[in-house]
Amino acid sequence: MISLNEIRKKIMKGDISSLLHLSSEKNIHPSEVAKLFNELPIDSTLNAFQSFPPKKQVVVFSYLDILLQKKVLRGLSKERSIYILNKLSSDDRLNLINSYKGVERSHILELLEDKNKKATHDMLGFPKESVARLINTEFATISGDMTIEKANEHLRTHHVDSETANVIYVVDAEGKLVDDIPVRRLVLNDPKKNISEIMDGYCVKLDIDDSTEEAVTKFREYDRTVLPVTNADNLLLGVVTIDDVMDVQEMRDTRDMQKFGGVESLEFPYVQTTLFSLVKKRAGWLIILFLGEMFTATAMGHFQNEIQKAVVLSLFIPLIISSGGNSGSQAATLIIRAMAVKELSLRDWWYVMRREILSGLALGILLGAIGFLRITAWQELHIYDYGADWRLLASTVFFALIGIVMWGTLSGSMIPMILKKFGQDPATSSAPFVATLVDVTGLIIYFSIAAIILKGTLL
Amino acid sequence: MISLNEIRKKIMKGDISSLLHLSSEKNIHPSEVAKLFNELPIDSTLNAFQSFPPKKQVVVFSYLDILLQKKVLRGLSKERSIYILNKLSSDDRLNLINSYKGVERSHILELLEDKNKKATHDMLGFPKESVARLINTEFATISGDMTIEKANEHLRTHHVDSETANVIYVVDAEGKLVDDIPVRRLVLNDPKKNISEIMDGYCVKLDIDDSTEEAVTKFREYDRTVLPVTNADNLLLGVVTIDDVMDVQEMRDTRDMQKFGGVESLEFPYVQTTLFSLVKKRAGWLIILFLGEMFTATAMGHFQNEIQKAVVLSLFIPLIISSGGNSGSQAATLIIRAMAVKELSLRDWWYVMRREILSGLALGILLGAIGFLRITAWQELHIYDYGADWRLLASTVFFALIGIVMWGTLSGSMIPMILKKFGQDPATSSAPFVATLVDVTGLIIYFSIAAIILKGTLL
Repeated sequence: MISLNEIRKKIMKGDISSLLHLSSEKNIHPSEVAKLFNELPIDSTLNAFQSFPPKKQVVVFSYLDILLQKKVLRGLSKERSIYILNKLSSDDRLNLINSYKGVERSHILELLEDKNKKATHDMLGFPKESVARLINTEFATISGDMTIEKANEHLRTHHVDSETANVIYVVDAEGKLVDDIPVRRLVLNDPKKNISEIMDGYCVKLDIDDSTEEAVTKFREYDRTVLPVTNADNLLLGVVTIDDVMDVQEMRDTRDMQKFGGVESLEFPYVQTTLFSLVKKRAGWLIILFLGEMFTATAMGHFQNEIQKAVVLSLFIPLIISSGGNSGSQAATLIIRAMAVKELSLRDWWYVMRREILSGLALGILLGAIGFLRITAWQELHIYDYGADWRLLASTVFFALIGIVMWGTLSGSMIPMILKKFGQDPATSSAPFVATLVDVTGLIIYFSIAAIILKGTLL
Repeated sequence: MISLNEIRKKIMKGDISSLLHLSSEKNIHPSEVAKLFNELPIDSTLNAFQSFPPKKQVVVFSYLDILLQKKVLRGLSKERSIYILNKLSSDDRLNLINSYKGVERSHILELLEDKNKKATHDMLGFPKESVARLINTEFATISGDMTIEKANEHLRTHHVDSETANVIYVVDAEGKLVDDIPVRRLVLNDPKKNISEIMDGYCVKLDIDDSTEEAVTKFREYDRTVLPVTNADNLLLGVVTIDDVMDVQEMRDTRDMQKFGGVESLEFPYVQTTLFSLVKKRAGWLIILFLGEMFTATAMGHFQNEIQKAVVLSLFIPLIISSGGNSGSQAATLIIRAMAVKELSLRDWWYVMRREILSGLALGILLGAIGFLRITAWQELHIYDYGADWRLLASTVFFALIGIVMWGTLSGSMIPMILKKFGQDPATSSAPFVATLVDVTGLIIYFSIAAIILKGTLL
């Protein structure tokens, strides 16, 4: 018995013979084989893959990531491709075919058996974000009037040993969903009992039109690992498993984070994204933000006379506007995430607004006080001379910070809600976006307060 | 049969009688009852809860969130509390007891039966982030030499119908784990077969010392919904289910996002966090960032003469330093997330650095060009007069943007990796943190380039 690590070591040394015998090693999990393949040159992968018995090929194939699946398919004979594509579980098949575009997609679809081709075609018709894209159309059904003994016999003859048999579905004569029964209940109850006796009466299900977001919520709310999917007529169409939903959730979170960081979300993992598309994904938002930030130059232009008169005012510009950006980005983070995990909804806006105004006030006073003390200390300790009117300058900084931090907090918390209200993704109100907005308005707040406090002295 | 919506409506009108009959409504899922309770005053909740039969109380209780669980416990008689606490699944019990501190925790522990008390005590000894905290110590075992028929009989008499029976564990005479068998295999195979014949030889398991992060990775890698947990001697200690792991993952992502937004991560959901602690969680980072950003005032102080001579230079300060912050926050987002989902590791630093320097160069040239054009256009169209040396000013902005965007991109991508290298959480390199760093250094870059280009003219 050879361990995966030994195989890995041998391969590192250029000896791939052990790889060719992988197929006979029963105790290596297909997911580990797939991981190994991810690290190998495609030729060695293909060599080893082709030495596997057909069934093992299908299992290992299903664990490969999509890019590698496509590479492997290109290297296989047509017969082998046809075999694998048709034996894949329907959700894996859909996922793979979905990644092809145009002519390539038609070519792949041609390799499918009629039944699979039709099912795939149907599912591709649903929007990208719907559960239809995650559906597995293999499932095990029984009828409610069977005894457990009879049901077990039926399942033994009609269903293969696959994950989809972890939950058995009770359907009526027309195929409409009656209830779901975890397969353990067929073991844990007296075989003489009737199926209808072990049904529990509540059957959580997804609608084929449900979004994947809604599916995530249902899985979590009911602590399920697999849920049936029905259409409006309650006809059982397939099942969705939690691992696919977890993938979707992780992708959603990745997208949210990337948006929040001011990047258009990547289609592929970072390491698989080309440099060109990496730059493209970032350039869009960066340019928009840059154009927005140009208004700071315009705003500063309006205050050029003030700056000329009191250059000392300009020293605190980065400090003051960035405080608004930081407090705004904090507020946006909290609100965006709370909305994503459904802790907050739009109707809570007034509650959020009150809390954020108060938080902003408290935080603003805190930073304002620190700013005031900083100027006082530097002046008194002769570290820097802010001129005769340094007390007025310190007061300007104090009040400007209160105003700007409150404004930042308020914008950061309300913009995500406003975006949601208008059907946009709240995560679009990224940290850089909020910061840019607050930079521009912050300058106006700062110079306006300065104009009031310093009129007749510095200005 | 009354629907949940009707009950909700009645309650809104002050009629809680229907609530008291909830227990007889078999077709309402306990998770829906729990959701309803979350929206009700605690008195109505307690009233309804106490009208439930004991078993139903346990199920509904397990779906309540922890804060509500604690409130309900306070309202129940001691006998009832003892019953519920001891009937809870061990992971739910641990989770609840873990939320109590000090004396309160001792009081609750006193209510447990000896067996449960000991198990809870043991698990509380493991670190917060280990799988021991998620473990469920109820599980179903059989031995490899049984026939399927015999195993089914054994399970029927020794195990209750609970989620933990979805996978059956084969153990040897000492309780050491041999293999895991999905319960469906007991149904789908000939009852005369031996258990050893239906074992597949690979058994994925968690170690009791594994971190929850490692558990998440294993669940995803092997597409499992439940995994056994063993100690170093391979003794089977319990099982961990995917829903608990999903909760942990969601919390991790929430924490990452909050850190990235520059907030100390909240212990409770936003809506359950008091205003005071909301301010406290934000104040820490905000003050640190403010102190950091103070260096901008110091840096600006050094360049006060330059600003005095060429006030026009100050107009572009916010624009230029924010571009560095934005590109840095983009880079940090991409790298932090790629590390969190294990697409990148530390040894990839050189690969990342090269890519990010090139990306930064491309993005810097792009923004620099836009900045150059903006100044040229405003000058030529007489929108604003930047003086006779406006071409030199535009060149300064062009080169400063290239330098600062490259620097921002590089800092944003490398700081998370450096933090990780020193055992810190990469997400600590929040967007505001990177922005602050780049603000200070950005000013120095800007004025240095200005000194070179404008020497003898404006400066």
